[in-house]
Amino acid sequence: MQLSEVAVELNSQSKDAMNRIHSSIFKTPCLPSRLKLPSSTKLWLKTENFQYTGSFKLRGAMSKLTNLEKDAPVITASSGNHGIACSLAAMTTGHKLTVVLPENVSKAKLAKIESYGTKTLLHAGDSGQAEKHARSLAKNNDYVYVSPYNDSLIIAGQGTIGLELTQQIPQIDNIFISMGGGGLISGVGSVIKTFSPKTNIIGVSAVNSAALAASMQAGKIVTTEHKETLADGCAGGVDENSLTLPIAMEVVDRVIYCSEKQIENALQILAWDEKILVEGAAAMALAAFLSEKESFFGKCNVILLCGGNFDRDVIWPIIKKT
Amino acid sequence: MQLSEVAVELNSQSKDAMNRIHSSIFKTPCLPSRLKLPSSTKLWLKTENFQYTGSFKLRGAMSKLTNLEKDAPVITASSGNHGIACSLAAMTTGHKLTVVLPENVSKAKLAKIESYGTKTLLHAGDSGQAEKHARSLAKNNDYVYVSPYNDSLIIAGQGTIGLELTQQIPQIDNIFISMGGGGLISGVGSVIKTFSPKTNIIGVSAVNSAALAASMQAGKIVTTEHKETLADGCAGGVDENSLTLPIAMEVVDRVIYCSEKQIENALQILAWDEKILVEGAAAMALAAFLSEKESFFGKCNVILLCGGNFDRDVIWPIIKKT
Repeated sequence: MQLSEVAVELNSQSKDAMNRIHSSIFKTPCLPSRLKLPSSTKLWLKTENFQYTGSFKLRGAMSKLTNLEKDAPVITASSGNHGIACSLAAMTTGHKLTVVLPENVSKAKLAKIESYGTKTLLHAGDSGQAEKHARSLAKNNDYVYVSPYNDSLIIAGQGTIGLELTQQIPQIDNIFISMGGGGLISGVGSVIKTFSPKTNIIGVSAVNSAALAASMQAGKIVTTEHKETLADGCAGGVDENSLTLPIAMEVVDRVIYCSEKQIENALQILAWDEKILVEGAAAMALAAFLSEKESFFGKCNVILLCGGNFDRDVIWPIIKKT
Repeated sequence: MQLSEVAVELNSQSKDAMNRIHSSIFKTPCLPSRLKLPSSTKLWLKTENFQYTGSFKLRGAMSKLTNLEKDAPVITASSGNHGIACSLAAMTTGHKLTVVLPENVSKAKLAKIESYGTKTLLHAGDSGQAEKHARSLAKNNDYVYVSPYNDSLIIAGQGTIGLELTQQIPQIDNIFISMGGGGLISGVGSVIKTFSPKTNIIGVSAVNSAALAASMQAGKIVTTEHKETLADGCAGGVDENSLTLPIAMEVVDRVIYCSEKQIENALQILAWDEKILVEGAAAMALAAFLSEKESFFGKCNVILLCGGNFDRDVIWPIIKKT
């Protein structure tokens, strides 16, 4: 099957992004899993949890900022991985960055963002309202708004993971990628499908917050209910006009849904068998593999561990359960 | 200062070992530390905890076995990292391996060793007596005894870590290496000193079990008291005639001693800041860095994380304390 022009173009944009960002990101290793599996089965962990800032988001942020005029002031709204990534990226490129945060943001998160020299703006309401405010400031005050996923430069930045993987593990049968807004899976999926059309791109969604998965099934953005999930890095809705929807529909071969119980179990296995502590969104990708593992035996499988930033009070009670 | 012939020869043996074993070991990554340090300070974690079998010992075992006649039956005595390493190595090379274990060995450790197809022999008494029995069987029954450290092929195998490091981090100012019998530090130290005489090789010893450090100070093997230590992978005495003593005396620039409290603290930092769970002997190398960290600021520092195999009942109460 022929890839669309958009996906082919994304692969090429990812190569351009790699040229701009390679010296500012960490080429994350692929670790061999220590789980007991048949000897014919390969299982690799692509450890973006060890990326600088603790998540893949740095790649997209660096890709975007290195493509802007040096004096363009930039704005975004995120107290999480995207906000931290933009902060380090702006510190690296020298851009003036403002991050809008909900006024009830935790002191720890505020301090973390500000530690990079980022200007913060507290706004009434929740994170959705903070985002709206950031967008409106961008319109009125000549800021450039940096979306966490709905921007081809951001998507291309995440795609650099795919470029590394083609060198690290040339023959991948299945790759498991957690889906939030879809920037990660669109970027990595486009690159991998260009390089190796036979590789299965498996999107992973929390049952409790499945906006992109539901939209992919409907063929258009649909609103879904969002319950609390351990994969909070993937939670939330998707922009009405998101670039990621058509790309994800094209490059994702199938979606696996994970329950909170399955994510818990994967967090425990990563801690006690693989000996690494990750965030729920990362563990969810392993959970999807485990949910049907027999069907992936005899294959070369890659789990993309997307990040390692977690709230210790949340993760702690889970890993101690076993 | 000129390196001795022995150290130069070890560097060359390490290169030979690398040629024999490279396809059977994992080239472990160097991860950038996530600790807050001045920007001029580099801190890398060489993650042998992610080595197959969970410790560096696989390198020495593979180096030894790949240098033996295929039909030579081999014997050793270790329920820990060396025993597991020899087991996987023998499974890889096809050698017939027997491991002598104290009769009170835990079921879990016994099962682990036997899972590789290794023959086990339970012997009355403690692990010291098991080792004596293994040595006597080697004398009488034409087994080849595989020492965990007192063998130039084993030392050269561990030295392959140094060869990888010279490629991964070409300009190291300080490298922190935990010391047990001294196989690791002799091998890595010889290779690094050949490549870069200015690099400081910093040996790390638990206060509670410091046989090699005390012997290095005395200039001969001395017996010391052994108290319990979290760095149990480094605990125990050193062979009377050990090859490692003169090499360690030559290549080690200084020794830092760590208390149990310092090892605890390093285990916690590795878990909650670096997000990796390691064994006490590995954490001890970071503890040494932290004990005088200001003096290593502005330098390029490498912590050798030697292994990730731990007894969960021991490590758990420590990392949950913070």
